[in-house]
Amino acid sequence: MNAGYNFASGPSGLPAAVVERARTELFARADDGSTAFEQPFTGEAFGATLAHARARLKDLLAVPDNYHILFLAGGATQQFSMVPLNLLGDASHVAYADSGHWSQRAIREAGRYAAVTIAARYEGERPLAAPPLSPWCLPDDCAYCHITPNETADGIAYPALPDCGAVPLVADVTSCLLTAPLEVARFGLLYAAAQKNLGIAGMTVVIVRDDLLRRPAPLVPSSCDYRAQAAQGSRANTPPTIAIALAGMMFDWIAQQDGLAGMQARLQRKAALLYDAIDASGGFFRAPVAPGHRSPVNVRFELARPELTTPFLDYAAQRGLHHLHGHSAFGGLRASLYNAMPEEGVHALVTCMADFMRRYG
Amino acid sequence: MNAGYNFASGPSGLPAAVVERARTELFARADDGSTAFEQPFTGEAFGATLAHARARLKDLLAVPDNYHILFLAGGATQQFSMVPLNLLGDASHVAYADSGHWSQRAIREAGRYAAVTIAARYEGERPLAAPPLSPWCLPDDCAYCHITPNETADGIAYPALPDCGAVPLVADVTSCLLTAPLEVARFGLLYAAAQKNLGIAGMTVVIVRDDLLRRPAPLVPSSCDYRAQAAQGSRANTPPTIAIALAGMMFDWIAQQDGLAGMQARLQRKAALLYDAIDASGGFFRAPVAPGHRSPVNVRFELARPELTTPFLDYAAQRGLHHLHGHSAFGGLRASLYNAMPEEGVHALVTCMADFMRRYG
Repeated sequence: MNAGYNFASGPSGLPAAVVERARTELFARADDGSTAFEQPFTGEAFGATLAHARARLKDLLAVPDNYHILFLAGGATQQFSMVPLNLLGDASHVAYADSGHWSQRAIREAGRYAAVTIAARYEGERPLAAPPLSPWCLPDDCAYCHITPNETADGIAYPALPDCGAVPLVADVTSCLLTAPLEVARFGLLYAAAQKNLGIAGMTVVIVRDDLLRRPAPLVPSSCDYRAQAAQGSRANTPPTIAIALAGMMFDWIAQQDGLAGMQARLQRKAALLYDAIDASGGFFRAPVAPGHRSPVNVRFELARPELTTPFLDYAAQRGLHHLHGHSAFGGLRASLYNAMPEEGVHALVTCMADFMRRYG
Repeated sequence: MNAGYNFASGPSGLPAAVVERARTELFARADDGSTAFEQPFTGEAFGATLAHARARLKDLLAVPDNYHILFLAGGATQQFSMVPLNLLGDASHVAYADSGHWSQRAIREAGRYAAVTIAARYEGERPLAAPPLSPWCLPDDCAYCHITPNETADGIAYPALPDCGAVPLVADVTSCLLTAPLEVARFGLLYAAAQKNLGIAGMTVVIVRDDLLRRPAPLVPSSCDYRAQAAQGSRANTPPTIAIALAGMMFDWIAQQDGLAGMQARLQRKAALLYDAIDASGGFFRAPVAPGHRSPVNVRFELARPELTTPFLDYAAQRGLHHLHGHSAFGGLRASLYNAMPEEGVHALVTCMADFMRRYG
């Protein structure tokens, strides 16, 4: 049986090779008889798992030595609170670029802890696009500027990074980390929930430059204090052990596929195939995002006749193409092409779209 | 090969039957082709996993209908912050009983958010005991009173619950939840990290009475707002999906072993066997906690000759008896007898102790 293809925005599928490896390795018994589910946090076996994941991620992204890599429990929404609580310091302002749904969620949460300057504003008019990249007016007294380079729900990607001068750039890279090379040194802090390109739900990676850890807010929960987590190797509170083990397996798998350059080349092929099929459908399918701003990883599209949306979702599911519905805020369709999605999955989707169009067009 | 016995204070071992079930079920493919690692949070397959875990836990503990059961990412330390942030409301005071290491950690964290009254003080003199259960003077303006009925590091258990009158009783039951029946209605809130008696690391269960959810603090992180988590069925932020699946399997396993009465009977046999062996060793081994206050689940003991501690740990490990060292704050020895520890494990430990005593006594 074909296992089908999972186009969900997250949790994503995992590569078949990672699933097979997990099936073996999570249940292998260490010298003390424990499986990966049962290992003490301070013991050798889990210590090796944690060190492996950290070293592999450092390699893949060429993380400079003055950055800490943290593996924290929970999802990215928790970091919407923890970023201002950890980085505000003596500043009174933070800046956020509004680029759609998830950046707006981040802005709302940050506004509970600091005065938020909107560095750039999302227009929201079709064709949809990332906010203009200049001029961004940042207040002098600004702890950081936050962006969402890939908007998972809106299907929008920044065409380039903004220039924020000396203000540290913070980015929610939940849906795009490890889909392409990234110059970590351009950022003060990066964070990404794992369940899209790095493994499974329950863990978020934070990569943070060490000079930003000087002044956590007095009220940051101890378990979420980046400085304490850095000092204690992500073990200041119960670490999400299985999610860390799975992330290590994903990092190995990515390295085996020519690393981030390999991921990027494959992603570009997958995205081009799908966007070309949409654009070549004579308006039967259409993409609401302007070329140049289209996310390669979350392909948002729709049917010109909205009443065909549910029939299309059913038609696709019958062919093993699952979870193609758009974000609940927008409806329509979305195909997420995360690292684990094989090119054959996109070929199958494009064929399915053509067949559906022949039947209903 | 004997897989050995894991006496660690956490993560604990899992019952062999649960490990086998996980090996099969986590990798079974749902209708959409996804394994448990890959299922969308809002989809049917994970929805069923979550509903199953919640229903089973409600059954096991006979949780009244006016309580919410939450499955949250992270460990119990995070709840040290979240309890005051969620429950303080308009009150200015909270009360905490000091009973040893982990309650002191909880007190320190609560003191960052509220004025803390110490309702009862730990003496810390041998023989060690829980703090006196009366009189507890609670301020009128007191949001809740927090206890740690089982001190995992100190090896101390309360002989009974205090009477806090109308003040809601909050308890960190991380190391004892589901080891014996518990009258939930006596508590306003209970919380327990999963990796001791309920499964694996990365998840904490919170059981909270609904009238306590009225007034979260203005600055509680949205992802940690109990009210929002209750309203959204523990999906206000990325849920720890695999830890929830494993907890459901543990709940089933406990139900199959005669439920909490069965767990309690077995635990009492295990604890009696070990404490009797310690007390009958003529002072070669000794337990620092007074009878009547000894934790059945975290048996703290030591060698009269401390220089024998490391030889004993090595001797036990060679026989497959692992992680018997005490908490790093205290040294000595500790055997954690969580739900998954079979009675044969304790028999093997008692035999090992007798053999060691013959050799070194």
